[in-house]
This record gives sequence, C-alpha cells and structure tokens, in this order.
Amino acid sequence: MTVTDELLTNAERYAAGFTKGDLPLPPAKQIAIVACMDARLNPYGLLGLTEGDAHVIRNAGGVITADELRSLAISQRLLGTQEIVLIHHTDCGMLTFTDDEFKAGIQAEVGIKPSWSAEAFSDLDTDVRQSVRRILDDPFIPRKGSVRGFVYDVFTGKLREVPSGD
Amino acid sequence: MTVTDELLTNAERYAAGFTKGDLPLPPAKQIAIVACMDARLNPYGLLGLTEGDAHVIRNAGGVITADELRSLAISQRLLGTQEIVLIHHTDCGMLTFTDDEFKAGIQAEVGIKPSWSAEAFSDLDTDVRQSVRRILDDPFIPRKGSVRGFVYDVFTGKLREVPSGD
Repeated sequence: MTVTDELLTNAERYAAGFTKGDLPLPPAKQIAIVACMDARLNPYGLLGLTEGDAHVIRNAGGVITADELRSLAISQRLLGTQEIVLIHHTDCGMLTFTDDEFKAGIQAEVGIKPSWSAEAFSDLDTDVRQSVRRILDDPFIPRKGSVRGFVYDVFTGKLREVPSGD
Repeated sequence: MTVTDELLTNAERYAAGFTKGDLPLPPAKQIAIVACMDARLNPYGLLGLTEGDAHVIRNAGGVITADELRSLAISQRLLGTQEIVLIHHTDCGMLTFTDDEFKAGIQAEVGIKPSWSAEAFSDLDTDVRQSVRRILDDPFIPRKGSVRGFVYDVFTGKLREVPSGD
C-alpha cells in the first residue's frame, strides 16, 4: 500500500463526518496566506484557520514568483480578499543550497539546466522583505494596504513579524 | 483590528501549546500534495495530515506551472519525497472565467496585460489530467512512479480519483 492509498483512507473518514457542504466560494476572512510548503508548517493549526476561511498559497520557500502573483491577482480580483500574510520559517531547506549549485547538479545529471530560478536564499528576514516588495511592486494586485511578512520558528512554534526595513 | 491581527492572536495560542519542536526537515510520509488554494479545501483535515507529514504546494486552481515544477524538484531532490497527489475541486473559481477575458479586464483597468497565463479551465477532469501530464513530462522531477490526480467535492467532502484517460 502506498502513502497515497493511506491518505485516501483518511479522506473517506473525512467525507463520512463532513458537515461543511454549504460554504461560499469567497474566503470568509477575506485573506490570502502565502507560506512555505514545509511539512512542519501547518497554516491551519498555526493561524487557527478552518474550512472556508482563507486562500492558502504555498511553494518551496514561500517565495513570490509569477505563479504567486497570478494566484494573488485571482484571489483579490475574483474572490474579494483584502489582506496578505507571508510566512517563511526557520531551518528552511531553501537556506541550505544556492541556485547555481542546485541547477548545476541537475544539469550534470539530466543534461539540461532548468530555465527557472530555484529561489534559494541565505537570510530569512531579507527574503521575507524581498517577497513583500515583489507584491507591492506588482501592477495586477489591487489591494496592498495589509501585506505583512512573518518568520515561523519550527522549534518553538512561534510566529515573528519581519519589520519592513525601509 | 485587521484579520491579520486576529490570526496573530491564534498564532500565540498555537505557540503556547506547541509540542512538536523536534520534527525533522524531510516530510515523514515522503509525499508532496499539490492542491488548489480554495478556502474550502483543507488538505490537513481531508487527508489526515499533521505537522511533519507532507509538503503542501498550493495555488489558484492547483495547476502545474513552472513554480510547481520548481517546488516538486526541490521536494524530491533535496527532501526525499517519492509520491505526488494533485487535488482540484468542484465549484472552483477557475471554472468561472477564461484567460482572455480575465487578462483583458486587467488590461482595461491597469493598462498592462499580464505576461502570465491565468490557467483557467473549463473541465475539471481534463485539467487534472493536464496537470499530471505536465509533471510526467518534466525532466527535472526524478520520481514519477506515483503521480495521481483527484477532484475534491466541496459539497459532499468526498475525494474522487481522476482516471488517467490515455
């Protein structure tokens, strides 16, 4: 049995006890969360979110690339979200390599170098600020009055706000 | 008080009861989930996931673009995940518009047309299969033995597998 099969058994249990079939499409709390994909970072537990509350956007690093700008534009323009919360975290895998070495390793193995940036970073606060600035600089996201960046500490469970720094 | 401030109060409560500070960086279940950002789709509740279990990657639609391929390459190459689960869902916002009309609307308002594709779709199963195929066709994701696509029904809470179709 694969892990996927195990999760499908859990999904059957979830459906059996499901009582939230009447939630509207737009997020009730009008907020979008952008967070790292890291397994230790659970935005639902951390932020007290439940079904229907918020858009949750996640990738390696919790960084802002074209796809997060696309998702945020759709979130705000079509589904009415007003605030954005960004979450990076301590002990992140993105702190352990550089774009150059990661992509050179792939090129050595596969024979092709990815055309994308790996988006590794060496300082958490600096990258949170970089991510905030990419949002503030984007022409397609209409509401930028509350775009705040945080670092989650995977060892203590604490969330710390990153000062804007400029 | 903003919604962000309200979520920060929840985060303080989470930290106060935190007991999971010793989890390793690699996901325990060696699996990556790619799902839509939709507020009604809670991958933790649905799949029975908890802190430390799985990478969770999310965007508007749960579609596969360059950023998801980047995240999946990092997930497998640096953090050892072996399986991939894709989840779209019923009543998705991405079914309600076309790329052309969404981008024309932005251009009319902002004066610039986004260079990204909005990735809207008109059929759930077809787009799940499209997403699976984008992964299978990617040269940088090494492990493709278990890449399975699903549609979550937001009205019933049930998860349905999409047959590969070819």
